[in-house]
Amino acid sequence: MLAARNHSVTPSAPADEIRVDLGPRTYTAVVGTGLLAGAGERLAALGLRGRCAVVTNETVGALYLPAVERSLRAGGFEPIVVTVPDGEAHKSLETLSGIYDRLLPMGIDRRTALVALGGGVIGDLTGFAAATLLRGLPVVQVPTTLLAQVDAAIGGKTAINHPAGKNLIGAFHQPRLVLADVATLQTLPARELLAGLAEVVKYGVIGDAGLFERLEAQAGALLAGDPEVLAPVVAASARQKAAVVAADECEERGERAVLNFGHTVGHALEAVTDYRRYLHGEAVAVGMVAAARVSAALGLCDGEVETRIEALLRGLGLPTAVPPELRTPALAAAMRRDKKTRDGRIRFVAVEAIGRTRFVDVDGSEILKLL
Amino acid sequence: MLAARNHSVTPSAPADEIRVDLGPRTYTAVVGTGLLAGAGERLAALGLRGRCAVVTNETVGALYLPAVERSLRAGGFEPIVVTVPDGEAHKSLETLSGIYDRLLPMGIDRRTALVALGGGVIGDLTGFAAATLLRGLPVVQVPTTLLAQVDAAIGGKTAINHPAGKNLIGAFHQPRLVLADVATLQTLPARELLAGLAEVVKYGVIGDAGLFERLEAQAGALLAGDPEVLAPVVAASARQKAAVVAADECEERGERAVLNFGHTVGHALEAVTDYRRYLHGEAVAVGMVAAARVSAALGLCDGEVETRIEALLRGLGLPTAVPPELRTPALAAAMRRDKKTRDGRIRFVAVEAIGRTRFVDVDGSEILKLL
Repeated sequence: MLAARNHSVTPSAPADEIRVDLGPRTYTAVVGTGLLAGAGERLAALGLRGRCAVVTNETVGALYLPAVERSLRAGGFEPIVVTVPDGEAHKSLETLSGIYDRLLPMGIDRRTALVALGGGVIGDLTGFAAATLLRGLPVVQVPTTLLAQVDAAIGGKTAINHPAGKNLIGAFHQPRLVLADVATLQTLPARELLAGLAEVVKYGVIGDAGLFERLEAQAGALLAGDPEVLAPVVAASARQKAAVVAADECEERGERAVLNFGHTVGHALEAVTDYRRYLHGEAVAVGMVAAARVSAALGLCDGEVETRIEALLRGLGLPTAVPPELRTPALAAAMRRDKKTRDGRIRFVAVEAIGRTRFVDVDGSEILKLL
Repeated sequence: MLAARNHSVTPSAPADEIRVDLGPRTYTAVVGTGLLAGAGERLAALGLRGRCAVVTNETVGALYLPAVERSLRAGGFEPIVVTVPDGEAHKSLETLSGIYDRLLPMGIDRRTALVALGGGVIGDLTGFAAATLLRGLPVVQVPTTLLAQVDAAIGGKTAINHPAGKNLIGAFHQPRLVLADVATLQTLPARELLAGLAEVVKYGVIGDAGLFERLEAQAGALLAGDPEVLAPVVAASARQKAAVVAADECEERGERAVLNFGHTVGHALEAVTDYRRYLHGEAVAVGMVAAARVSAALGLCDGEVETRIEALLRGLGLPTAVPPELRTPALAAAMRRDKKTRDGRIRFVAVEAIGRTRFVDVDGSEILKLL
């Protein structure tokens, strides 16, 4: 916890309600402050009731579980708490199996909701457990990291890792509700807040020039974690994500791939450094600058686009360049191994202007050459 | 293999193509003889290509894998064969994990199809692997048991077992194609053929009086496993299943629950005998007679319905009565534990006439009393 980011929270501030339009699977992503206290009431309003299972880890649970449990009980629920170990290494079949072993003998039924309280690991794992328990239980995402609030919690992508790669086992399973309480970001380590901001910058680049300009103007307040500045920025990002998901729920039509802006190089950087050196958002920051450079080199945008993206990210304190020692054929190979490739070709998201992208087919070695 | 059922097969006999109407997930269930030889061509016609994985067990693999592999290669595929141990005990997280470990390091992509070659265990397990690998791979069901051909292979219900109960972990994941080759039934043990016929009788009772009459008239030829008699009967059953699935893909609207006719008592019988004494179809045979008796006792149908169902099943050599030693409170409790219950009440499928059913809410102990 950083004292410098200990802002006062106004629970009565109006929350932003973003509709994720998916026909019979439509749901709302609520962005605001002090939402945890209203979780039980909101779940009950969805018609959920009886037992529910809150999946969390020790770190997040210590901070926010009491408030969530209290709220669920007040809403008439009987919460079962499942605490899993903290960290990406535990987004595994083993942890999943532990969730099955814990919940199945309790006689849960198809209306037992799972509540994912935590960051992306908890959200992906809990979402996948919900997707597969009794062939599908309702899940409510309560993301407590910036990255999860603007990305993972919305859109129904759930997964666990496998020794062969990350997120290789999973399902599309939409939540019934997303509660993004920006007040929880006050306890987020600064480095994770920053990494989340990289994804926020991405939403500006791919579809919201106004958001990008707001980020340029308010970098200082964002870095300080001011909830009043963060809330509208998280909401704008969530709105973008919701629109992309609504257009292409299961990555079948290709529109959803726009979210991969910066991810071709970003994922490859994470892979060649064994997911140890970079947080996801940090790698994406580097990847976005690379994508802008490739776009400019292909004549798709002018150089100012790259300059602005790089300046904003650098101003936020994020990395922006592929370190020389990583500019190797292994990096190109890692780009080709990404699971979004088709027949080995990379569907690369290029930028035409701040707020506008297009797809181009390129090869990993071409990208490497252009950097 | 039973010499008495070694009928000549006419591969050129026209196959029955049954459309399973599910909007963007629409597919065809093909019922006929000699279909294995055309598997590769049919998969290619769906736009599938490149590598594919055939999941089978040793028993079925020894009989039919060569034909399927040959056909896939002829269709331009590179089949990877995954052989899993035979038997319900292996429809487990452990076997699933083995499939993940085998396929994921091979660099499969989202167009790698899985082919399930075997009975219900193989179909459910392979279907669930396909549902969860890379968040969903195409799956083709090639059922080789009567039960799988008329039931499990159609409709997208996939699952594995858990120590807490059967099919508790799973997903709805529709196949891209079902190839039901009735020629494969010639190698099916007689007891399994019979158990499959119980489910065929069910389709007659729940929605096809003509099918029921055909079964009454052709019991002898069916028992002999004559493919020419079996093919239209399998097709009529598959058509019923397809219609029910089209009306209620994910058991949300309740229509699909009509398929549970005979299953309330049937499932309970299997559970209280630890899945050792009865094959599923045998338990369902007993359950259907019980359901008819309960229906008559509730004044929903006349006694002749029970008489006809019992006579047909007995004529086929199937069990029709709950043994006295199993008429215990434990049986009623097992009915209540079924995962289709809501708030402890059983949604019981009652019969009004051969070909027509309705739902009634009853309690397990009431059912027990009426038997």
